[in-house]
Amino acid sequence: MERKTFDTAPCSIARSLDVLGDWWNPLIIRECLYGVHRFDEFQKWLDIGRNILTRRLKQLVDEGLLEKRPYQDNPPRFEYHLTDKGYDAAGVLLALMAYGEKWHFENGNEPIRIFDRTSGARVMPALVDARSMRAIDARQLYAGPGPAFPADKSVRRSRFVEYFARQGDGKRPAKTTE
Amino acid sequence: MERKTFDTAPCSIARSLDVLGDWWNPLIIRECLYGVHRFDEFQKWLDIGRNILTRRLKQLVDEGLLEKRPYQDNPPRFEYHLTDKGYDAAGVLLALMAYGEKWHFENGNEPIRIFDRTSGARVMPALVDARSMRAIDARQLYAGPGPAFPADKSVRRSRFVEYFARQGDGKRPAKTTE
Repeated sequence: MERKTFDTAPCSIARSLDVLGDWWNPLIIRECLYGVHRFDEFQKWLDIGRNILTRRLKQLVDEGLLEKRPYQDNPPRFEYHLTDKGYDAAGVLLALMAYGEKWHFENGNEPIRIFDRTSGARVMPALVDARSMRAIDARQLYAGPGPAFPADKSVRRSRFVEYFARQGDGKRPAKTTE
Repeated sequence: MERKTFDTAPCSIARSLDVLGDWWNPLIIRECLYGVHRFDEFQKWLDIGRNILTRRLKQLVDEGLLEKRPYQDNPPRFEYHLTDKGYDAAGVLLALMAYGEKWHFENGNEPIRIFDRTSGARVMPALVDARSMRAIDARQLYAGPGPAFPADKSVRRSRFVEYFARQGDGKRPAKTTE
């Protein structure tokens, strides 16, 4: 088993991966975005085993990304719909889509395109810095500990000073501003 | 085994997940961004088994996200560095980070912060539409088949007309524009 949980990791990426970081959960969210909400339909479109699908839907409900809505009383049957948290997770899918289009499909030859529901205009997801609105180039980034960075003995800050100091040319930016 | 390959799926998300969609590969890319490049250091920071790490590094090299650079001749030893494709994958990690910060850490209490290397200004990743530069709200999106959408008998377009028609209120945008 390679599976491991990151539900207490001091890292936003690791925490998100705990729910989103394998194949099925993001694809179930994709199906919801495409309008698929019922068990048999998830199974049909994803070609996924019933036991795996049952487990994943339960996890996504437990984690607050999906909510169950009854659509039939006898026998009771439920649809699965995205919550606010689930729609936010769709942002990760759009980043995956942008990366996949660039590297796995020829330019302009995408299998799926997305549009704005109201205007009908094509939407092209891009990652920018919310303040400067400029495209983010990962080569230009520098990471450092934030307020929730662990200060306990098991993960000593002193080790991480060395860790973060390694980035790029090893020089910190002259002066970081919040 | 729940693992399944999506390397021919007509979906940018599924194709990307084939390499990025479990825990270790994105975390190895994270480590590279943080300046970790050598086998023993990946192992130390990720607390990952040597056999799993060996396999994952090989996959990331084979898929073109990492490149090997010799740093010692006798015995031969290599460092692993991000390629252009690997840096682009970092965009997915930034989307994961933004989602994780919102939903797994209290506002402003992030464990890691990122800065621009040159200016030192804090960087806050956000997903926008590259044309309008407005924030993307997944509720407002509509998906439809693109040029590379499969038209063969095994995945019939007619089925997908129904599939895409289910989104939201079932109405397509009045007129989509490319």
